[in-house]
Amino acid sequence: MDLTGRQLIGASRSQEGGEVFTAVNPTAGEVLAPEFRDATRSEIDAAMQLASDAHPAFEMEGRERRAALLEGVAAAIEALGEPLLRRASDETALPLARLEGERGRTCGQLRLFAGVVREGNYLDLRIDHAERDRKPIPKPDLRSMQRAVGPVVVFGASNFPLAFSVAGGDTASALAAGCPIVVKAHPNHPGTSEMIGRVLGGVVGELGLPEGVFSMVHGRGNRVGEALVAHAETRAVGFTGSFGGGRALFDIAAARPVPIPVFAEMGSTNPIFLFSHALSESGTEIATGLAASVTLGVGQFCTNPGLVIAPKGAPTNAFVEALAGSLEQVAEGTMLHAGIRQGFDRRMAEVTSIDGVELVFAGRPRVGACAVQAALLATDAKVFLQHATMHDEVFGPSTLVVRCDGIAEMRAVAAHLPGQLTATVHAAPDDGADLDAIMPIIEQRAGRVLFGGFPTGVEVCHAM
Amino acid sequence: MDLTGRQLIGASRSQEGGEVFTAVNPTAGEVLAPEFRDATRSEIDAAMQLASDAHPAFEMEGRERRAALLEGVAAAIEALGEPLLRRASDETALPLARLEGERGRTCGQLRLFAGVVREGNYLDLRIDHAERDRKPIPKPDLRSMQRAVGPVVVFGASNFPLAFSVAGGDTASALAAGCPIVVKAHPNHPGTSEMIGRVLGGVVGELGLPEGVFSMVHGRGNRVGEALVAHAETRAVGFTGSFGGGRALFDIAAARPVPIPVFAEMGSTNPIFLFSHALSESGTEIATGLAASVTLGVGQFCTNPGLVIAPKGAPTNAFVEALAGSLEQVAEGTMLHAGIRQGFDRRMAEVTSIDGVELVFAGRPRVGACAVQAALLATDAKVFLQHATMHDEVFGPSTLVVRCDGIAEMRAVAAHLPGQLTATVHAAPDDGADLDAIMPIIEQRAGRVLFGGFPTGVEVCHAM
Repeated sequence: MDLTGRQLIGASRSQEGGEVFTAVNPTAGEVLAPEFRDATRSEIDAAMQLASDAHPAFEMEGRERRAALLEGVAAAIEALGEPLLRRASDETALPLARLEGERGRTCGQLRLFAGVVREGNYLDLRIDHAERDRKPIPKPDLRSMQRAVGPVVVFGASNFPLAFSVAGGDTASALAAGCPIVVKAHPNHPGTSEMIGRVLGGVVGELGLPEGVFSMVHGRGNRVGEALVAHAETRAVGFTGSFGGGRALFDIAAARPVPIPVFAEMGSTNPIFLFSHALSESGTEIATGLAASVTLGVGQFCTNPGLVIAPKGAPTNAFVEALAGSLEQVAEGTMLHAGIRQGFDRRMAEVTSIDGVELVFAGRPRVGACAVQAALLATDAKVFLQHATMHDEVFGPSTLVVRCDGIAEMRAVAAHLPGQLTATVHAAPDDGADLDAIMPIIEQRAGRVLFGGFPTGVEVCHAM
Repeated sequence: MDLTGRQLIGASRSQEGGEVFTAVNPTAGEVLAPEFRDATRSEIDAAMQLASDAHPAFEMEGRERRAALLEGVAAAIEALGEPLLRRASDETALPLARLEGERGRTCGQLRLFAGVVREGNYLDLRIDHAERDRKPIPKPDLRSMQRAVGPVVVFGASNFPLAFSVAGGDTASALAAGCPIVVKAHPNHPGTSEMIGRVLGGVVGELGLPEGVFSMVHGRGNRVGEALVAHAETRAVGFTGSFGGGRALFDIAAARPVPIPVFAEMGSTNPIFLFSHALSESGTEIATGLAASVTLGVGQFCTNPGLVIAPKGAPTNAFVEALAGSLEQVAEGTMLHAGIRQGFDRRMAEVTSIDGVELVFAGRPRVGACAVQAALLATDAKVFLQHATMHDEVFGPSTLVVRCDGIAEMRAVAAHLPGQLTATVHAAPDDGADLDAIMPIIEQRAGRVLFGGFPTGVEVCHAM
């Protein structure tokens, strides 16, 4: 597929001439053709108006047609073959094998949602039959169901250029529900985005669906995304990215004359709670598994475990030593782009500059603008509790062990954490009392609680 | 029950001494004992902290215990007998018969939610079983369910002192879900609120539930409510009232470090769409029914039909005449309090001052600070479309007929309406084409669409 760099406005291609940008290969630092441009105000208006016009007709097409759309997109993505994976790898430095797995997940998501929409339970149908003879007044026939909310703006995420991007989970769920979408392509993989966007638009056309069901616009700065969220025709937003970015979009959405929901998956430290018996019995295995989880995808998973909360003592000391050893064996990685690498450096500097934070392990000096190696930090609960900057995500391949004086301090640390995507507990049967003391706090903070295992690696299924 | 005027902070009574206020009988204008006081900051903190402390234990009490709580509250409200209805009537000018019906609805809601929580479908349980032998990696056992979000602040509404107040729908659903509540009592029926609040707290105590499951604070101005919504321990808000009030609370909730949802039922004009064949066939019956709906509860229902959209012509002229005649036969009513009556006057003056708005009918001069009579206004679609103030609610017993040049103008009027609780269509079989042209617009604006009938009178059932 020859890339054009154009905005996809329904069935049309447009490039009115906003600011120019290109993709960059993070490994080599070289510019990748073609040039892309920020969408203009009129391109954004055109995309949103087409989406709004398409909404009633698209919803009325019915669930079977929407399921066919999702399945058609999955097949079309697979048909793109190796060139898609190579372009994605060029733009993100992610290995081909990882991208092949991610493509499988992406198509699996689309097909899962096709099944969900076909099955129809999500409609939450309720029928209260009339009681014409009821006294003192008759009961009318009453029915309720979920309806498509209207045009959804979907933001592509940098760290999953397939599974959380143009045809990712947010797109699959919005299309399944009958909502037209306008995708804001991520500026660090615009070529991958164009390839997916063009086949998605192609399936919309082949099925004879309204062209406004899918549009995609580019933009490097914040302006395009902000305009999309503020747009009068937008009814909901799907976003995966940093806490700062998500919060900024939420604030725009909440300040609108008619506020709209922002479904945002944002920064998370994904704490791991280790209890004393589990540490004694299997500290080394946990360390090995954790090192792999911390460095998976060069630490760029939303569910990357950035915080380990453990009781002070010999088992934790041995665990920290084993973890440092495991991390040392992980090869240097290349991050998605220079901005992410700089952010990692900045956050590492913030945390390591705090008195009482020990840099237990740091990889060898880095070569290249996006190259990093894993790092391991440790501190005491008292230090941790005093510094809010340590409670927030460090996006990258590092983790921070917080040593606690018994369960009371573990509870205090847990209670200071903001909302989390995940929390993980490693507890042996004899840790039951400690686990019971922590669970009520964890449950209120994490959307997913893991008993054993590690939070990276997200299953695509009905319960998640 | 001897009223005390105290705040109910869990099992304790408190009156630290904020600003004093009393209830006023809207009919006679007389002050009703006792004195109430705005809750202080420390009373608000104490109530929210108790609620937060109670949350994990309350949720873990289990669904059967929560169902027992809801049923116990319903029985305790019934046991209050006539004195409750008399106090409510004194504070609101609502007739005893209406309040008796509202009490039935209130207890019906509590029992409906007891059934819902016992049955458990609302938990949305999902279980994905493990596949230990799956390749390339095993699938873990994954389970998801709805959980109680935590302390909910419930605002009592003035217009339903039982069904949308201390033990109303928001309270029933929050307690059913396992969320402790802190009620902000409505300052225009504080005595009714105390009676309900004390029996609710009594049932909490009898069942041995954590005292923080229920607290209630008073406040006449905005300060107490704003502090509750901004409070760090608050996790959600239930509100029924004006658009301005709801939006102000939403803005506070959205600006928090951790935003929380505000479930608000706010101003709505509840448009009625009349089509030509329906008007010709049954215009007089529709006029009679509409007059009753407009004046029900002195026009103080959230679902009061404040807007009628109809095609220009003889059938609509005859309908307007019949509607004026029916409204003339409705006795003068007394509004809930002087503030609502003043608001009605102000909004009526705003709308009638617009060139092209005709005051078709207005009742005889009013006696008393809260007395009003019904009014009927009419205008053309072109005038309506130019004046946004006519698109918003006039809270009280009035309705505005908008005459349209055919279906195109009816569509334009519909498309200019903000979100609505309800929209109603009266269409005969031969109106099918016009109905089809309007429905896609209505469906996107109204949470409930009625085919025939009138929007006042809300059924308590699973579909609503």
